[in-house]
Amino acid sequence: MTPAPANRASGNVEDARVARTRADVARAALEVLTEEGSEAVTHARVAEIARYSKTTLYTHWPSRIDLITMAIEALGEMPHHQRTGELRADVIAELKVFRKGNLDLRLDRVVASMAQWASDEQMRQVRDKVNTDGQHQMYAMLGEVFSGAALDAAVSMLTGVVACPSLMFGTLPDDDIIAAAVDIVLNSAQARSVEM
Amino acid sequence: MTPAPANRASGNVEDARVARTRADVARAALEVLTEEGSEAVTHARVAEIARYSKTTLYTHWPSRIDLITMAIEALGEMPHHQRTGELRADVIAELKVFRKGNLDLRLDRVVASMAQWASDEQMRQVRDKVNTDGQHQMYAMLGEVFSGAALDAAVSMLTGVVACPSLMFGTLPDDDIIAAAVDIVLNSAQARSVEM
Repeated sequence: MTPAPANRASGNVEDARVARTRADVARAALEVLTEEGSEAVTHARVAEIARYSKTTLYTHWPSRIDLITMAIEALGEMPHHQRTGELRADVIAELKVFRKGNLDLRLDRVVASMAQWASDEQMRQVRDKVNTDGQHQMYAMLGEVFSGAALDAAVSMLTGVVACPSLMFGTLPDDDIIAAAVDIVLNSAQARSVEM
Repeated sequence: MTPAPANRASGNVEDARVARTRADVARAALEVLTEEGSEAVTHARVAEIARYSKTTLYTHWPSRIDLITMAIEALGEMPHHQRTGELRADVIAELKVFRKGNLDLRLDRVVASMAQWASDEQMRQVRDKVNTDGQHQMYAMLGEVFSGAALDAAVSMLTGVVACPSLMFGTLPDDDIIAAAVDIVLNSAQARSVEM
């Protein structure tokens, strides 16, 4: 059945209103997640920050997993460095973008929160998408000089140079540690290609 | 004032009883943390698992941070590989012990939980102690061939080979990825020493 034009128009208004509410609530949930941690992402707290009623939130997003999932989706695409073609400079720049994301987007708290909630299938899919998106460019760059297990190892290692101090000690690596890490990985690639 | 002997004896009995309660509650809190995540570490849930009353728990450990801190202290010393002196084999074995810890002790969930709670000073101290303890042997081994920023980078990178897949995707690296990572780091150390 084709709905009457008047109905369709009011449906569109309704859809736009729900979409706006969703965007507001998602932004508020992300703010609570990164500022206060995933424990704080409750219907009451997110409703307060978003300035909607708790009833509205419960109606559309009945579980806390829904709120956390929306928060993480609200992060959007992971930021990446625009490649120049100079491998060493590009890898260093990409790690600095990731380091900045840990400060600006509090990616450390997002990762920790996602790890906590990963027993939920919906959450696990969101987590895998965010993290795959985050490592995609590093795979493309290091794929020029590594393959197979060495490529997986190199990507985990360079991710770890930023992620490990951040998650384990709440600190971020200095420029010289990032450069040293990239040199260890790329020198090794060079040594391997000389051997071959 | 010296307490009468009778009092001292009953004090010792009291101390022993509190110590036993503390050990029971800490073990229960660790079980809840690793099986159900830090959100589940509530007085009600830990009391249920430990088979003590909620009132007992609230009396001795009034905040949830106390319960989480005890859980993490209950982990005890981080497991390490017994060194043989053969650097490559020792580093690989140490990473495999860390990988096993992620399975047996759910260190990934412990790390994620500690990162979430790190805005609390007491929690931050526990976190730094556990993580420093975890990386100590890796620093000693890699300190034979690296120093300064390169040493920090190498330790973060090799920690990351196990920690990153675990925290980001809930998976652990295969033996060949661990070996590839160790070879990338040690080949690079060798290339540097040849240059010098």
